[in-house]
Amino acid sequence: MDLADCYKKVRQRTDAICEPLQTEDYVVQPVVDVSPPKWHIGHTTWFFETFILKPYFAEYQEFDPNYNYVFNSYYETVGNRVIRTDRGNLSRPTVIDVKRYRKYVDDAMYNFLACGNISPDVEELLVLGFNHEEQHQELLLTDIKYILGNNPLFPAYDHHYVSPKAQHSDGGFIRINEGIYEVGFKGEGFAFDNELNRHKVYLNEFEISPNLVTNAEYLEFINAGGYHDFRHWHAAGWDWVNTNQVQAPMYWHNMDGQWHNYTYQGLQTLHLHDVVTHISYYEAYAYASWKGLRLPTEFEWEVAAPQFSWGLRWEWTESAYLPYPGFAKAPGAIGEYNGKFMVGQKVLRGASEVTSPDHSRITYRNFFQPELRWQFTGIRLAK
Amino acid sequence: MDLADCYKKVRQRTDAICEPLQTEDYVVQPVVDVSPPKWHIGHTTWFFETFILKPYFAEYQEFDPNYNYVFNSYYETVGNRVIRTDRGNLSRPTVIDVKRYRKYVDDAMYNFLACGNISPDVEELLVLGFNHEEQHQELLLTDIKYILGNNPLFPAYDHHYVSPKAQHSDGGFIRINEGIYEVGFKGEGFAFDNELNRHKVYLNEFEISPNLVTNAEYLEFINAGGYHDFRHWHAAGWDWVNTNQVQAPMYWHNMDGQWHNYTYQGLQTLHLHDVVTHISYYEAYAYASWKGLRLPTEFEWEVAAPQFSWGLRWEWTESAYLPYPGFAKAPGAIGEYNGKFMVGQKVLRGASEVTSPDHSRITYRNFFQPELRWQFTGIRLAK
Amino acid sequence: MDLADCYKKVRQRTDAICEPLQTEDYVVQPVVDVSPPKWHIGHTTWFFETFILKPYFAEYQEFDPNYNYVFNSYYETVGNRVIRTDRGNLSRPTVIDVKRYRKYVDDAMYNFLACGNISPDVEELLVLGFNHEEQHQELLLTDIKYILGNNPLFPAYDHHYVSPKAQHSDGGFIRINEGIYEVGFKGEGFAFDNELNRHKVYLNEFEISPNLVTNAEYLEFINAGGYHDFRHWHAAGWDWVNTNQVQAPMYWHNMDGQWHNYTYQGLQTLHLHDVVTHISYYEAYAYASWKGLRLPTEFEWEVAAPQFSWGLRWEWTESAYLPYPGFAKAPGAIGEYNGKFMVGQKVLRGASEVTSPDHSRITYRNFFQPELRWQFTGIRLAK
Amino acid sequence: MDLADCYKKVRQRTDAICEPLQTEDYVVQPVVDVSPPKWHIGHTTWFFETFILKPYFAEYQEFDPNYNYVFNSYYETVGNRVIRTDRGNLSRPTVIDVKRYRKYVDDAMYNFLACGNISPDVEELLVLGFNHEEQHQELLLTDIKYILGNNPLFPAYDHHYVSPKAQHSDGGFIRINEGIYEVGFKGEGFAFDNELNRHKVYLNEFEISPNLVTNAEYLEFINAGGYHDFRHWHAAGWDWVNTNQVQAPMYWHNMDGQWHNYTYQGLQTLHLHDVVTHISYYEAYAYASWKGLRLPTEFEWEVAAPQFSWGLRWEWTESAYLPYPGFAKAPGAIGEYNGKFMVGQKVLRGASEVTSPDHSRITYRNFFQPELRWQFTGIRLAK
Repeated sequence: MDLADCYKKVRQRTDAICEPLQTEDYVVQPVVDVSPPKWHIGHTTWFFETFILKPYFAEYQEFDPNYNYVFNSYYETVGNRVIRTDRGNLSRPTVIDVKRYRKYVDDAMYNFLACGNISPDVEELLVLGFNHEEQHQELLLTDIKYILGNNPLFPAYDHHYVSPKAQHSDGGFIRINEGIYEVGFKGEGFAFDNELNRHKVYLNEFEISPNLVTNAEYLEFINAGGYHDFRHWHAAGWDWVNTNQVQAPMYWHNMDGQWHNYTYQGLQTLHLHDVVTHISYYEAYAYASWKGLRLPTEFEWEVAAPQFSWGLRWEWTESAYLPYPGFAKAPGAIGEYNGKFMVGQKVLRGASEVTSPDHSRITYRNFFQPELRWQFTGIRLAK
Repeated sequence: MDLADCYKKVRQRTDAICEPLQTEDYVVQPVVDVSPPKWHIGHTTWFFETFILKPYFAEYQEFDPNYNYVFNSYYETVGNRVIRTDRGNLSRPTVIDVKRYRKYVDDAMYNFLACGNISPDVEELLVLGFNHEEQHQELLLTDIKYILGNNPLFPAYDHHYVSPKAQHSDGGFIRINEGIYEVGFKGEGFAFDNELNRHKVYLNEFEISPNLVTNAEYLEFINAGGYHDFRHWHAAGWDWVNTNQVQAPMYWHNMDGQWHNYTYQGLQTLHLHDVVTHISYYEAYAYASWKGLRLPTEFEWEVAAPQFSWGLRWEWTESAYLPYPGFAKAPGAIGEYNGKFMVGQKVLRGASEVTSPDHSRITYRNFFQPELRWQFTGIRLAK
Repeated sequence: MDLADCYKKVRQRTDAICEPLQTEDYVVQPVVDVSPPKWHIGHTTWFFETFILKPYFAEYQEFDPNYNYVFNSYYETVGNRVIRTDRGNLSRPTVIDVKRYRKYVDDAMYNFLACGNISPDVEELLVLGFNHEEQHQELLLTDIKYILGNNPLFPAYDHHYVSPKAQHSDGGFIRINEGIYEVGFKGEGFAFDNELNRHKVYLNEFEISPNLVTNAEYLEFINAGGYHDFRHWHAAGWDWVNTNQVQAPMYWHNMDGQWHNYTYQGLQTLHLHDVVTHISYYEAYAYASWKGLRLPTEFEWEVAAPQFSWGLRWEWTESAYLPYPGFAKAPGAIGEYNGKFMVGQKVLRGASEVTSPDHSRITYRNFFQPELRWQFTGIRLAK
Repeated sequence: MDLADCYKKVRQRTDAICEPLQTEDYVVQPVVDVSPPKWHIGHTTWFFETFILKPYFAEYQEFDPNYNYVFNSYYETVGNRVIRTDRGNLSRPTVIDVKRYRKYVDDAMYNFLACGNISPDVEELLVLGFNHEEQHQELLLTDIKYILGNNPLFPAYDHHYVSPKAQHSDGGFIRINEGIYEVGFKGEGFAFDNELNRHKVYLNEFEISPNLVTNAEYLEFINAGGYHDFRHWHAAGWDWVNTNQVQAPMYWHNMDGQWHNYTYQGLQTLHLHDVVTHISYYEAYAYASWKGLRLPTEFEWEVAAPQFSWGLRWEWTESAYLPYPGFAKAPGAIGEYNGKFMVGQKVLRGASEVTSPDHSRITYRNFFQPELRWQFTGIRLAK
């Protein structure tokens, strides 16, 4: 597939995700970690305008200089950003304006790409832009779920949405021998800077489950009083549980004694055989501790992953998000991409049911603060 | 004008106010004191549904029971309210849904009013509903100004909006003699419970300005360092200035040394001869103190008002918002209307350029917390 | 009594109040409204050093220039003050150092007063200093109660402390006729600037109780669910109750179904016949509302006070703390004394069992934020 | 040395540390991470009472059951703890009371230890108690520095305190080859559970400095605008710098253009050749980033440490505080010791000038949140 086709495909998928939305759904920001869908579609557009069109396409005319201010995210190099908590206050530019901006940039991009003569540097930026947009596609889907799932009317996103089912293995834990292993990305194709370089690690013998924890299993933890027993929790997790009065995964509602769950189809009774999701690292850790087990490290996960089915849930690991040996930031704004978040976050491995197709890799390192739950997170046990 | 005509007129004016809005403008809530326009048009509709149609119109079918939860405001008697800070998180019901709700209730109201046979009790509730909606019309206009005026694109609400000009009197301060005066509402027509009962007060001799303070006059205070000299401020006001880094009235922007002002027409250079507005009580007090003068009490204002022109600005008074002698709350939810706010707020007298026509009275008592500025507030001096 | 004797008497009473304290009790500040006792004894000393000795006693050598920074309170004119919330962090100057400072200033004051030749201006400042110290004596006693009463060991301040008993009148409510009355201070002797000037007010007919509300009466309100029924509360009061989970007056503890009360004698079973105390304005208002009555205004109180016994409790009034007609601030730091607090506070009238002797007046205006409870506040009903 | 002698030695060292304190210094808690010295001496006493005397010494009579509540720290198993932020509010028990408690427990311990017949389990708990008290000795010294160093009078702790000088190596960076290394504790003697087990790790080739960064070197970073350039900082670090207006290490004061430094001797001009201290992980990382270098991981540090001089500063590493392979919590309250903090913290290696003698080990893992600065932290660079 040539670059223009790739561009078209990734851009159209973003449009398709937004298709079921009402105009109003594009605007709100119920919590700081969720961005308004309007912002996502503006920001991914801004990325191509800022890093491709403006520096490399001589004939390009900027759409509107104010948009740099509105749709910049964390790239401090490029200009003043809209304070993140303020994004949900902006009724303008309207959705129509943002779509006009999107079309304007797309048209320019098609012209630019039609010129041919794309240098390897620019191609690298383009591929980064595609991957960046794919990341925002997943954020769009989880942010939309948050926006609709926290509305008292519990509107469905897609009445025909089908959650993929996990493959269940009846085999026991997978055992991996002690020894030196190689982890990290190497080879052709795209990878983020945080996956580089491929390097050796020494692992002790360990065992890892071929299956993710299910709702039924997690319910046992709840029913056993797991949220009320400090012994299973980190000190910070225990504070989090008590401050926020957490009693169950996000989107679970106990209505008259029956557990329900908000899904893309709306509010439903809880499906016990589905794999549990929307839990924080603190909950994943506490569940593992209650079972007398633990979470795998990211390297254990990477080494064992070829032996189990993965891709439904972002799986919390015990590993902190830290640089690999030899990690180096790219110069300029692009270099702000990953390295600046390498403190205080946990690594998640795998992918989720809403990760964009072809966006998964066994070396992929996702990362979030330990209390966040709005992604499709899950639990795999190790010992 | 009969009741149905009155109903129609007040409801249509709300629609007219919203006419220049984009869908997105209906949704956001940039600060807790501002409500999304969508909420105002739902809430004023909910008022008629809840207090007229449901109790008094036997054939009425509730539009949607969830809407009571969404559009209730502070009426704790009637059901769980949406926490005020959450209003801006709600993308649903959509604007179209809310307008459908509005039309549904309007149709039912016209049917109800066409029946004739409106009891005096119901008529009283209707008139309260009209006045309630007129209050929300003013809030709509000031909330819209806040939403647009805090957007980095500074969109205009109405390019042809004309600010009314203040009548300037060259006469000096008006002198009022010491003695007993009557204040408060008495007579025919509508008044809020907080204006009752008419009662005697004793006033010392005082003088009051026939004019409101202008931008030019207020600018002298700024240029004299008024925001940096604690002696003019209440302790609470001084904390407010410093915590919020206040340096000028709301909507003033100093751009390259030139003062600008966001108005309904967009960003403009400051008109020096206009009367100052969007200042807090703390600022009004500090300005008066800097001039060696003071603000009038609400009773001084009421007694002197027939001798000057008023109605452009809500004029901060020195008076706290307290019950009049013999004040009694109505029973039930309607009784929550005013009395529960009678602590910690200041009285404003007059009306503003965006007060609904026929909604002003010389006995009208408006009230806000001393730090609030998003209404068209102003300053009249006394001594 | 001459000025030196007055000085000695007031200064010795402060020492006597502190006599039962351990060194550690002088240091802590459990909440922002409570000051460490060490600070009170330093601050009252600083007052005489700053306003008498330094300007008027030529031979005086300042004790330590750092102390101005440490013991200044809200007098912004005089220098940088220690941020109020930081007072409890200061282990130095030690109690011994502060007492040395106190003795040093006292010795200088005796020398100064022995010179004779005190000008009327200085005498006025001296009398202000005596009254200022008497105010701090009451604060010392209530702050000490807070410090010891919030310690898990519940130490007694004075095992032999005897609470004065209220005089109970069996007569019904006292009726006062409509008409013009004079209120405010006039005459010989000391008064604060906020009591001036004596002026006329017009009162409607009202009735006022000769008795304060008792613990037994207040308990009925609690048992009737008063803290759980929003109808009795201001909106701000209802928020306060829920945010702080308030269920009873300060210092009440329900232990195994039996109400206890921390007093200067330590923890005791609740005395039902004592007059209730340590309640906020919000609670006083809610109690009155539940009884179908109201609180008096400060002018009603002042006019009726000669007909009932008062002085045990600071009685919350319905009046906001506002300037009297003709109120004018003194120039300089002394002028910061009262006027800067005239927003957002309620007036309390009377005095309490820990008010300094001879510090009470029928025109005295005490004032606090409506949520504060650590003073000996109480309730008198009106209608 | 027998156990009784060990006990005596460790307990006397705590007393010696407190010797220069005034009573008031024992009481205050200026920030949540600092505990009042009184609490440290009570808490270390409570440890021996709770874990040794009560379970193992039959004739022991508890000193005061309330003290369990007051001096418990994070041991949720043992009873309700005093909320950490409240410790500075407690004037009682007094310092004399706490010393009486300390003597009571010491006497009982000497009797207990004189019995002989100490089981290996109890001996293990005793040694844990000694190490626990040594940790609190270091906290005492750093908390005292904070209490005195944040007092506007800047009192000295010890006028004769001598800071140890760092040994300076003129050699360049030490190079360590790629390969498998063993890390973690193994062998005789005491170690905390978090140092176990000794295990293999694979390290890439790296280089590490033999020297700590000096004040002079750090000043270059400041003078180069390091605190104002977001590119050197983590996103969380940049927020921390801006929220707290951080401009220099803790205890540095720029007075009239000259840098000063609060030390145990009081305020002094900054010694440029001393090694920098009291910096956060964020600052250590930013400094390294500005130099184009990085911090070592804890395993790099442990492997290289035999080749350089260490022990003056707790050296921030790039490693997050995580469990070693096979880490298992001890059952019961003792098991709460370390594992519950294994999220969100960074590892520091080495020891500091105020670490208790004989308390250092090459395998020792200290850990703090990345923003904390009140310990004697420092920077060693790697590449």
